[in-house]
Amino acid sequence: MTKILVNDILVDEQDAKVAYNDRGYNFGDGIYEYVRIYDNKLFTAKEHFERLLRSAQEIGLDIDYTVESLTEVVRKLAEANGVTDGGVYLQITRGASPRDHAFPTPPVEPVLTAFTKAYERPLDKLENGVSVVTTDDIRWLRCDIKSLNLLGNVLAKEYATKYNAEEAIQHREGTVTEGASSNVFAIKDGAVYTHPANNLILNGITRRVIQWVCDDEGITFNEEAFSLDFLKAADEVIISSTSAEVMPVVKIDGETVNDGKVGSVTRKLQAGFDRYIESHSH
Amino acid sequence: MTKILVNDILVDEQDAKVAYNDRGYNFGDGIYEYVRIYDNKLFTAKEHFERLLRSAQEIGLDIDYTVESLTEVVRKLAEANGVTDGGVYLQITRGASPRDHAFPTPPVEPVLTAFTKAYERPLDKLENGVSVVTTDDIRWLRCDIKSLNLLGNVLAKEYATKYNAEEAIQHREGTVTEGASSNVFAIKDGAVYTHPANNLILNGITRRVIQWVCDDEGITFNEEAFSLDFLKAADEVIISSTSAEVMPVVKIDGETVNDGKVGSVTRKLQAGFDRYIESHSH
Repeated sequence: MTKILVNDILVDEQDAKVAYNDRGYNFGDGIYEYVRIYDNKLFTAKEHFERLLRSAQEIGLDIDYTVESLTEVVRKLAEANGVTDGGVYLQITRGASPRDHAFPTPPVEPVLTAFTKAYERPLDKLENGVSVVTTDDIRWLRCDIKSLNLLGNVLAKEYATKYNAEEAIQHREGTVTEGASSNVFAIKDGAVYTHPANNLILNGITRRVIQWVCDDEGITFNEEAFSLDFLKAADEVIISSTSAEVMPVVKIDGETVNDGKVGSVTRKLQAGFDRYIESHSH
Repeated sequence: MTKILVNDILVDEQDAKVAYNDRGYNFGDGIYEYVRIYDNKLFTAKEHFERLLRSAQEIGLDIDYTVESLTEVVRKLAEANGVTDGGVYLQITRGASPRDHAFPTPPVEPVLTAFTKAYERPLDKLENGVSVVTTDDIRWLRCDIKSLNLLGNVLAKEYATKYNAEEAIQHREGTVTEGASSNVFAIKDGAVYTHPANNLILNGITRRVIQWVCDDEGITFNEEAFSLDFLKAADEVIISSTSAEVMPVVKIDGETVNDGKVGSVTRKLQAGFDRYIESHSH
C-alpha cells in the first residue's frame, strides 16, 4: 500500500486527506519542493530544502522544520514506499483555519504532505531532445517563491500538451522568462544565456547545477534576459528541471532549432550534470 | 453541528476533508464565489454563479452545475446551518489526480466544497468609514478569474492587518487596480472613477450594483484607471465587496481623505445599494 506523509505520519493513500478549510486549499497558501532520488540517494536535497525554507520565509510562514529534519522525513517516506529511482514531492501549507485572507491569529499548525513517485531517467528525450511551444507569461511577480499558486503554470502546461509539446516557454512581452515547470537556456557562440534569478523566475536547482558545470568547463554563463527571437535563433536550446534534467530542445513552435540536432555544448552540460548526480546524491 | 458541503453531500465539519492530491491543494487549480445572505434570502446569486461559470470556462474546467443548481445547493446548505444573515462560500476544483501540471486525461470529477458564515452587516464601519493602506499589486495577469490562486491577495491583506488597516489597495507602478478583496472607487467632482473591468481586476458584483445605482441616480460612472495620487486627492473614496458592501474609506496610508468625513455621493450609493438588497434578494 502506497504511503503518504501527512504531518510526519505515514498514512495509507486513501486516508491521506486534508481539511476543507486548509489554507492551501482555499488560497494556495503554501510552498513546495520536489527532490529527485537516484539509486536510492537524494540528489541536492540540501539545496532544495534550503530553498523551501527561503520560500516559507518569503510568505511569512513559520515552520519548525530544518534542512536536516526535512531530509529525514523524505528519506523515511521513500524507504516506506521502496522508491529507489524517482522523486519525493513535499508541500507545506499555512494550515487549516476559518477562511480569512489575513494570516490566522494566533498561527495554526502548518500542514505538511508528501508523496513519492517512481520512474527512470528520461534517457530517450535526453538523447534526442523535445519540442516546445511559447506562450505569454501571465504569472505573478514573485515567481522566485516556489508556492502553490500554480494556475498560470497549469494553463501554460496545458497549452503545451494541447500542441503535443513537452513544455511551454513563457515570455513577458517578448522577453523569455522560464518554462511552465523548467528554466530555459539559449546557447549562442559557445556561451550559455539564461534569465537572471530575480522575482520573475524560480532559481532552479538544476539551473544552479548547470551553472556549476559551466564554471567547471570554462563555459561562459550569462544571466541575461533575452528575447524570443534570440531564443529561436540560438545555436542550441535547453530546458532544465529536477525531472527533465538538462533537456535539449530541438523544436520551438514547430520550427527546428539550428539543424534540429542536439549540440555539443548541451552534450558537455549533460555529461557535467551526470557527474554532479554522482557527487551530490546522498 | 455545522454542516459543510462536499460534492453535494452535507457532512459534519470534522469530516469535511479532501484528498491530499486534489488539484486545488497542489496548484490552487479551482474557482470560487461568495454569496451574501440577507434576511434568509440570497443576494445577487444569479450574478455570482454566472461569474463562477465564466471563471470555470476561463480555466478550462468543465462542470455540470448551472446557476439554478448552484443556487439550490447553496440554499440547502444555508438552511441546514440555519444561517439567515451571513454568506455562503463555494469553491470548485479540477479534482483529485496524480500531480501533473497538465489537466488530467481523462478528466476527473471536480470537487465542490462550500461552507456558511453567520454575521450582521458592518453598520458601524459603513457609517464611519475605514482606513486602508496601499501596496504593490504583484498578482497574475488574469485577476478577472475568481480563482484559488490568492497568495498575492493574502500577502496584501496581511500587510493591511499589520498596519491595523481594513484593506490594502493595490497598484501597478502607481496605477490603482483593486483591493486585496475589494474594488476601489475614487469620487471627484461628483463623478465616480474605478478601474476598467479588464484582466487586472475582478469585476465585483457589488461594483456592478454601484454602477446600477449610478445609472439610477444620474451619477457619472467612469471606468478609467487612475493613479495613487488621484486616489489620495479624491473628494471621497470607497471600497466595495460582497461583505464590505459600499464601504467609505476615510484614511489612506495614515492621511485623511478630504476632511475625513464620509461624503454625500457615498451616502447616495449606500442608500441605492440598500434598495438593491431589497429588490435583488430571493
